[in-house]
Amino acid sequence: MPALTTAQIAAVCGGKLEGDSERLITGANTLDQAGPAELAFAANPKAVEQARSSRAGCLIVPEWFAAQGPWTVIRVSEPRVAFARALAALYQKPRPQGFIDPTARIDPSARVGPDCVIGAYVTIGAHSEIGRACSIGAGCHIGEEVYIGEDSMLHAGVTVYDRVRIGARVVLHSGCVIGADGFGFTLTADHYEKFPQVGTVEIGDDVEIGANSCVDRAALGATRIGEGTKIDNLVHIAHNCSIGKHVVIAAQTGFSGSVTVGDYAVIGGQVGVGEKAQIEAKAVVGGKAGILVSQRVRAGEPVWGIPARPLKQHLKNLAQLNRLGELRQEIQALKRKS
Amino acid sequence: MPALTTAQIAAVCGGKLEGDSERLITGANTLDQAGPAELAFAANPKAVEQARSSRAGCLIVPEWFAAQGPWTVIRVSEPRVAFARALAALYQKPRPQGFIDPTARIDPSARVGPDCVIGAYVTIGAHSEIGRACSIGAGCHIGEEVYIGEDSMLHAGVTVYDRVRIGARVVLHSGCVIGADGFGFTLTADHYEKFPQVGTVEIGDDVEIGANSCVDRAALGATRIGEGTKIDNLVHIAHNCSIGKHVVIAAQTGFSGSVTVGDYAVIGGQVGVGEKAQIEAKAVVGGKAGILVSQRVRAGEPVWGIPARPLKQHLKNLAQLNRLGELRQEIQALKRKS
Amino acid sequence: MPALTTAQIAAVCGGKLEGDSERLITGANTLDQAGPAELAFAANPKAVEQARSSRAGCLIVPEWFAAQGPWTVIRVSEPRVAFARALAALYQKPRPQGFIDPTARIDPSARVGPDCVIGAYVTIGAHSEIGRACSIGAGCHIGEEVYIGEDSMLHAGVTVYDRVRIGARVVLHSGCVIGADGFGFTLTADHYEKFPQVGTVEIGDDVEIGANSCVDRAALGATRIGEGTKIDNLVHIAHNCSIGKHVVIAAQTGFSGSVTVGDYAVIGGQVGVGEKAQIEAKAVVGGKAGILVSQRVRAGEPVWGIPARPLKQHLKNLAQLNRLGELRQEIQALKRKS
Repeated sequence: MPALTTAQIAAVCGGKLEGDSERLITGANTLDQAGPAELAFAANPKAVEQARSSRAGCLIVPEWFAAQGPWTVIRVSEPRVAFARALAALYQKPRPQGFIDPTARIDPSARVGPDCVIGAYVTIGAHSEIGRACSIGAGCHIGEEVYIGEDSMLHAGVTVYDRVRIGARVVLHSGCVIGADGFGFTLTADHYEKFPQVGTVEIGDDVEIGANSCVDRAALGATRIGEGTKIDNLVHIAHNCSIGKHVVIAAQTGFSGSVTVGDYAVIGGQVGVGEKAQIEAKAVVGGKAGILVSQRVRAGEPVWGIPARPLKQHLKNLAQLNRLGELRQEIQALKRKS
Repeated sequence: MPALTTAQIAAVCGGKLEGDSERLITGANTLDQAGPAELAFAANPKAVEQARSSRAGCLIVPEWFAAQGPWTVIRVSEPRVAFARALAALYQKPRPQGFIDPTARIDPSARVGPDCVIGAYVTIGAHSEIGRACSIGAGCHIGEEVYIGEDSMLHAGVTVYDRVRIGARVVLHSGCVIGADGFGFTLTADHYEKFPQVGTVEIGDDVEIGANSCVDRAALGATRIGEGTKIDNLVHIAHNCSIGKHVVIAAQTGFSGSVTVGDYAVIGGQVGVGEKAQIEAKAVVGGKAGILVSQRVRAGEPVWGIPARPLKQHLKNLAQLNRLGELRQEIQALKRKS
Repeated sequence: MPALTTAQIAAVCGGKLEGDSERLITGANTLDQAGPAELAFAANPKAVEQARSSRAGCLIVPEWFAAQGPWTVIRVSEPRVAFARALAALYQKPRPQGFIDPTARIDPSARVGPDCVIGAYVTIGAHSEIGRACSIGAGCHIGEEVYIGEDSMLHAGVTVYDRVRIGARVVLHSGCVIGADGFGFTLTADHYEKFPQVGTVEIGDDVEIGANSCVDRAALGATRIGEGTKIDNLVHIAHNCSIGKHVVIAAQTGFSGSVTVGDYAVIGGQVGVGEKAQIEAKAVVGGKAGILVSQRVRAGEPVWGIPARPLKQHLKNLAQLNRLGELRQEIQALKRKS
């Protein structure tokens, strides 16, 4: 059971405490669900209004919150960020001591750093190197010549093919497959011949990848995911893509081969991106959008639709589509007159 | 090999047998493929017509079927349901005796009910509880403090994260990941900070979830799947979704955070649902539809398209789109006249 | 480290060598990245132009390449195909000797052919048969009565349910699930009853299936994938589909039940195909297209859009949609005049 005093929580999130500094907080919850031993937060005016009727034992609130009640509050400039930090402290699991399960099958030529936790039925191939303090969940399969940086966490059941490089503090959720062959085949006479996929995958520091997502190895060279990028579940990243730093990619989105994505781009869910498309820095791609082969989405531009167009144009098209009946009627009226 | 007499099959499906009651049936097949030792069924007039030329050894037919041939038939009110029951009886595997594979790594503090079958290379974490008569396939990884109700079946290679609760008679197909972190990150200065996902997942009784589907844990509270709900392959259910009872969700559909779905809703394949959308009871969402952020789909309403609209309006828009060329010509004609 | 002389490479790809026949090549790369010990290729005029400034130690070029420089070149009729063959030779791993890991749990009634490599923590069920020289990666789970033809390769973490048949030289990438239950439920009174899925899956020779893809077993009969067909990551193939030979299916595409696809069809990514649709031989379905229930896509026809239409009509509709504003203005002008 987690447990911190309100004073400890205020310290963790750098806020100013008002009220009972000794109250013990054992969990966190939403404003409407939180009880007297729980922490909640309010970030915007609407939530602040709701906060007034919350039973939460402690509230993280904006600096401008007008306290006129029995609440114990912690004032901060960014309540959501402060709450996230408080959560991390409250729910922090004690770091397990380094431990290699006796059933982990680690090739004698592989190196595992100090303080790693290697789960049951893990396999690690020849010449691979796992940095210090990594956690490799049960049933993960790591190929040959793989490198994983320190403090990374692979949840149970992740597969990493040969020669992939993964940075520090990376989190891979269960079912991720990193480094499977890119999809490259050439029709030769009456059948497809495989274009050997001899490249690799390079994943930067602080990347997180969701459950059952796939990042394919490059045909030649490397498929790259830049540092700090966050990828949701069931995402497909094809061979030779180059995804920038601090990019956000929502669930079930797919990138065809050789797509480039600039830093800080935000890509919605179920987006499809055609081969060699270029999504520039800070572009925003709406959910379900379809980016055509070689299409270029300009820096900072929000796009939407299939095929994707600048948001303004997309909305205009939609509005006009909805008024087509009207248009038709106007034409009928004109015809009657003429 | 399964084997039942036609009389036994008639008893299983509560139908009225006409013809040879002692014929041995060893399997089931489609009307056109079934042979003399196989069962087939016909539910609608078209299939009934085909049934006349079927070689099946026994036919399940509607009560109004006009038998004028050599067939052995079983008359029932709902042929499809009766056939499903006959199949279940015909292909029923003998329940294996309770057995815990010696390689299953079960934490000493976990409890496994009687009559469970626990496969090879399974891991079960501390304080978890597996109800009686569950079947946990090879290579499943079950975290700490997980609860699984009786008679549930996890096929090989399922992953369940810590603190997830799963009901009775639940079926999870291979590659399912239940309880991975929700996708919550906040841009803070120049990088994304993770919003800790400290909630859980609660799955009701009689739920079935397809291969490689993902149900994320809640940020706070629980992501919920109501009893009797059936979910196909490669579906994504994000943090804090609340899916009702007896909902059907086809393959590759994705729900963003905090979506609610009412009881008996039917959701097609490859649908995308924006954050906080509300799909009310018995709504029907067409395949590939896009439900916008916070959009509300009314009870019983069929919707279609991207963005999703009432089916009638969607069809009207499509028809008008197809007649745009015509519209343009009418305008040209008017211009020439004016 | 791979290493072949330029003469050896020329022999492998059946080309005509000009220049240094003894140069040692240890890898391959793109034209702009390749160094003096690496092979690169140029297939079209633009690439040939780039090739002139490449530092590659050896270039595979079209027969019409006008060599006027220090390059060592290999002239061939199809540079891409020749390069693929050279890659296969260069990066060929020495075939490991047959080896069954002592932790592989193989039922005594199962048969494993000679020269197979069976990884750690694999399970193989009763009466299954694995052909000669197969490679079954760590943590694969193979059910009962499964048949796998010779020289097939299952990467780590593949699951194959009972009674599935897989041909020779098949490649299944990590996370594939073959033979999970089809999605068949019937609403009976107030809940869904499962329609038992008692059929199976049959996968032809030389098929390759990407990471985390799912092929469901048939309700009755078999779900079929024809020989030579190539399937990308995260694809869903529902019960009773019949996919032809030498079909190409890009990532995240989904097929509903009982779809048929003809030989040599090419299906883009994120396509959704409704139940019982028929995609005929050599049809081309554009990325993100939606094929309606029972829709028929004619042989050789390219279709696009949601719902999918012949490409020409789709492009016309898109163009007209973009000119709707113009149309509206023309009508306004007419109204002012009238």
